[in-house]
Amino acid sequence: MFETETLRDAKYTRTVLFETEAFEVVRCVWQKEAISMLHSHGVSQCSVLIENGIFENKTVLGFKTETQILKVGQFFTTPIAAEHEIKCISETGTTLHVYSPKISKDLKPATFHNQNDKLEFHLDLGDSLNWNHVSHLLSEIEKSSVTTSSPYFMNQLFSGVHSQTLAAESVIHRTRTTLATWEASPVYSLIEKEITKKLAMKMGWDSKNSDGIGISGGSAANMMALHCARHSNNPLAKTQGNQNHSYRIYVSDQAHYSFLKSANAIGLGTNSVVSIQTDEFGKMISDDLQAQIQQDLKSGHEPLLVAATAGTTVLGAFDPIDELAVVARKFNLWLHVDAAWGAPAYFSKNTDLIKGSELADSLTFDAHKFFGADLTSTFFVVKNGALLFEANDVKGGEYLFHESEELDRGRLSWQCGRGAEFLSFWTLWKNLGDQGLQNAIDQKLELVQTTVDFIKNQQRLRLISHPSFLNLCVQVLPPQGSEADPRAWSIHVRKQMIKHHQAMVNYSENSKDGAFLRMIFVHPQLNFEHVKNILNFALGVC
Amino acid sequence: MFETETLRDAKYTRTVLFETEAFEVVRCVWQKEAISMLHSHGVSQCSVLIENGIFENKTVLGFKTETQILKVGQFFTTPIAAEHEIKCISETGTTLHVYSPKISKDLKPATFHNQNDKLEFHLDLGDSLNWNHVSHLLSEIEKSSVTTSSPYFMNQLFSGVHSQTLAAESVIHRTRTTLATWEASPVYSLIEKEITKKLAMKMGWDSKNSDGIGISGGSAANMMALHCARHSNNPLAKTQGNQNHSYRIYVSDQAHYSFLKSANAIGLGTNSVVSIQTDEFGKMISDDLQAQIQQDLKSGHEPLLVAATAGTTVLGAFDPIDELAVVARKFNLWLHVDAAWGAPAYFSKNTDLIKGSELADSLTFDAHKFFGADLTSTFFVVKNGALLFEANDVKGGEYLFHESEELDRGRLSWQCGRGAEFLSFWTLWKNLGDQGLQNAIDQKLELVQTTVDFIKNQQRLRLISHPSFLNLCVQVLPPQGSEADPRAWSIHVRKQMIKHHQAMVNYSENSKDGAFLRMIFVHPQLNFEHVKNILNFALGVC
Repeated sequence: MFETETLRDAKYTRTVLFETEAFEVVRCVWQKEAISMLHSHGVSQCSVLIENGIFENKTVLGFKTETQILKVGQFFTTPIAAEHEIKCISETGTTLHVYSPKISKDLKPATFHNQNDKLEFHLDLGDSLNWNHVSHLLSEIEKSSVTTSSPYFMNQLFSGVHSQTLAAESVIHRTRTTLATWEASPVYSLIEKEITKKLAMKMGWDSKNSDGIGISGGSAANMMALHCARHSNNPLAKTQGNQNHSYRIYVSDQAHYSFLKSANAIGLGTNSVVSIQTDEFGKMISDDLQAQIQQDLKSGHEPLLVAATAGTTVLGAFDPIDELAVVARKFNLWLHVDAAWGAPAYFSKNTDLIKGSELADSLTFDAHKFFGADLTSTFFVVKNGALLFEANDVKGGEYLFHESEELDRGRLSWQCGRGAEFLSFWTLWKNLGDQGLQNAIDQKLELVQTTVDFIKNQQRLRLISHPSFLNLCVQVLPPQGSEADPRAWSIHVRKQMIKHHQAMVNYSENSKDGAFLRMIFVHPQLNFEHVKNILNFALGVC
Repeated sequence: MFETETLRDAKYTRTVLFETEAFEVVRCVWQKEAISMLHSHGVSQCSVLIENGIFENKTVLGFKTETQILKVGQFFTTPIAAEHEIKCISETGTTLHVYSPKISKDLKPATFHNQNDKLEFHLDLGDSLNWNHVSHLLSEIEKSSVTTSSPYFMNQLFSGVHSQTLAAESVIHRTRTTLATWEASPVYSLIEKEITKKLAMKMGWDSKNSDGIGISGGSAANMMALHCARHSNNPLAKTQGNQNHSYRIYVSDQAHYSFLKSANAIGLGTNSVVSIQTDEFGKMISDDLQAQIQQDLKSGHEPLLVAATAGTTVLGAFDPIDELAVVARKFNLWLHVDAAWGAPAYFSKNTDLIKGSELADSLTFDAHKFFGADLTSTFFVVKNGALLFEANDVKGGEYLFHESEELDRGRLSWQCGRGAEFLSFWTLWKNLGDQGLQNAIDQKLELVQTTVDFIKNQQRLRLISHPSFLNLCVQVLPPQGSEADPRAWSIHVRKQMIKHHQAMVNYSENSKDGAFLRMIFVHPQLNFEHVKNILNFALGVC
């Protein structure tokens, strides 16, 4: 059972004391300056006790790196999804390590799927299966799932698994409760209030009058914005419905499809959504907005709301909030900012992207995209908090709500049972602080610019638009001499990337350029090496 | 460091090999028949290796108990929130135990809060705090949260923390992805399809034509039912909005307030919701429904939908679905079943409660209430699956949806980013099977009846209505000679229960009886001892 091995390039010996699939206990004896290089532990939790000597432990927690000095009798635990590097700084040292479960030697490579991949699973329900068997199925499910934890997953507006989020999620689930009432979730109610207050301050609003709630996603938050705007325009809609109003909602032609879904759902109809043209960077043209509103007024429609997109899905464009605010104010319209994707801009040192936010009435803020909070952790924040309550509170909840709306936050919401997912964002923010979040976003913005410079020197890579945010849209052209359609080649490249489990990068299309790749820069560990690997693979596809 | 202790009443010795706050390694030496009685490990994971001998291990996983025999070299891990009992069945035996983190000796007693409890926390955001400090705050948050894991928590329509759910949640979060597209969540898309198919079969529908989605809560599912009914009645509403329709929605006067919230949100207005009277058991009176519809037709309204509540929040009443179906069919109305709370009735051997479900058009099914799935795990299922797609799909999602709607399930939903919470319900169902779920619900129904018999023998306890489900509504009368108001005494009793951290039981009121306690029977470990303790405490309040 006892086994000694000496690792190359590191002057320490490693003795396995106990070993099962469920756990492993290891003792290490170290010489001065010996280092166990930066490594993660897969799904295992790693705890280390210092038995002798003095050690330096560096932990990489997503966007943050922390270093601590540990002496005899001290210990540390590396959270799941974090990496750490341990170094002996005394003459000699001894450490005891517990891994639970045992670390898997064959760490799973990235897995991406094509539609025609056959997934063979016993997913059918009916008979009972013992827990060991079910646990095994769960690990199969994990292995067959797309490796969104990889920096090579640039397909969605999120990437990576954050250790702070995982730690918060454990607490959320062990304390499982609903956010409807204060008595069932006192601390979480306070945390929800704190986050929404701070977001209101980032908007430049008076945090005393504003309010907000955690909501089930960016789409739901946009739907709530339409609902609040309608209520503000006509409080009678609450009891009497839409009636004959012919409202108009203005979004850019690059806005998220949830405005159409929402207009359908809340009974305005998709025809009420008017797409305003964008410029070459994907930003709404405010003169066009004004012209459209004037025309709609002439036709007897009722302009209701302008939604500024802060971060479009394809190009990452930010509508000029300040310009739209001038128009919205002129016609007395509700101004909503959909920052589902652009939320990190509120933490960046570059505030140009979101200037004018103080003039807006409401905000959609997704913390599960760039910040890696629990999916989904969205906030809907309004300048006029009282309106959120008036627009949503109804009778009939007396069996549940025994306190004021200040305390029973479910009265602000469409949801009754509601989870505390947003604790994950609170945990991340608390650990990084404003400054840490600023660094995280600004470093990724720099990486985008470095990549732009690289692309400009590649003949077969074409930028679709100069990026202002974390989206980089690039078209891959076929190899010289190829007769392949350059407008479709990027789709072929993408399929090859997925097929070879190299990377997962989404694509989009427009009428001018055809198809192109959309690279999303959010993974905390994503660096220029990853980006070059992807682009070099793309250039190598034939 | 080495320490030996002998536990009373158990012939085994326990030696601590290594001990830190982060982990503990213990060796136990056993005599034949020695038992480590049923125990849990708080937030610690416990793994045991059999070093010598043969052992029997019994694990209690919420509603399910499993037993296994283990020999030399074998091991097991007790999932968090499960309990286990280990017994030596050979002459002697040795086991090695790893606890990670170390088990806390002072297991936290139940914590419940009154509104005036001051919670002092450093919840403010802005500065950064190192991870050790943040971890400590997370455990403070956990300690100050309401102990919903206790059987004495009977306040909500959920109670207890299920080990199957916790295990699934770990997988969900490590594979964090969105259910919008097949390519980002291939296995989860299959699982969603499997669950909704099986639920359609439980309704007695043709599972080939039906479809369904995971949705953000029972309220959202009820809202989706109204939306689908509207779309079915007038597909033009999708583009043109509600227009002049004066729809009417029929629910019982005991129905959930989400119908009012939804009617407001989807633009019909709360006046469109008509409350139909219920009988003494809280069930909608179908003759009254019919009369109301006829009257509304005369007044020029358009009856749209009847929602049968399967399990009301206060009394746990089930509307007579079969009778309502006759009325709905007669007037060509959509029939929705809101089984957010009554969902387990579809697994019970007593199918009387939900007979007629095959005649319904849609279902709200909450798996996070009785079943203890991740909060929230709701399913919205429709008989006509094509309608769900037609009612919700819009253009504008081409950047995301590259496959058919069969594969890209986000097209059926209002949500874009959507988590895989429902894996927790799949995991529970897979482990227990149909039969295990049936036993779980039927045992709790029996416990309710046992409690009813007990209450009938207590002069100061008054049943409000004979329970047909898992809600038991009981009024506590003041002690003899007291001048306290009997209509308000139950609220006083409840406050005392919470103040002394004895139990958390909600209350409700009606005009005939005044206030009464509402006991909810869902916690997997809840037994008659817990119930008697609560009622005896209630009788002792002065």
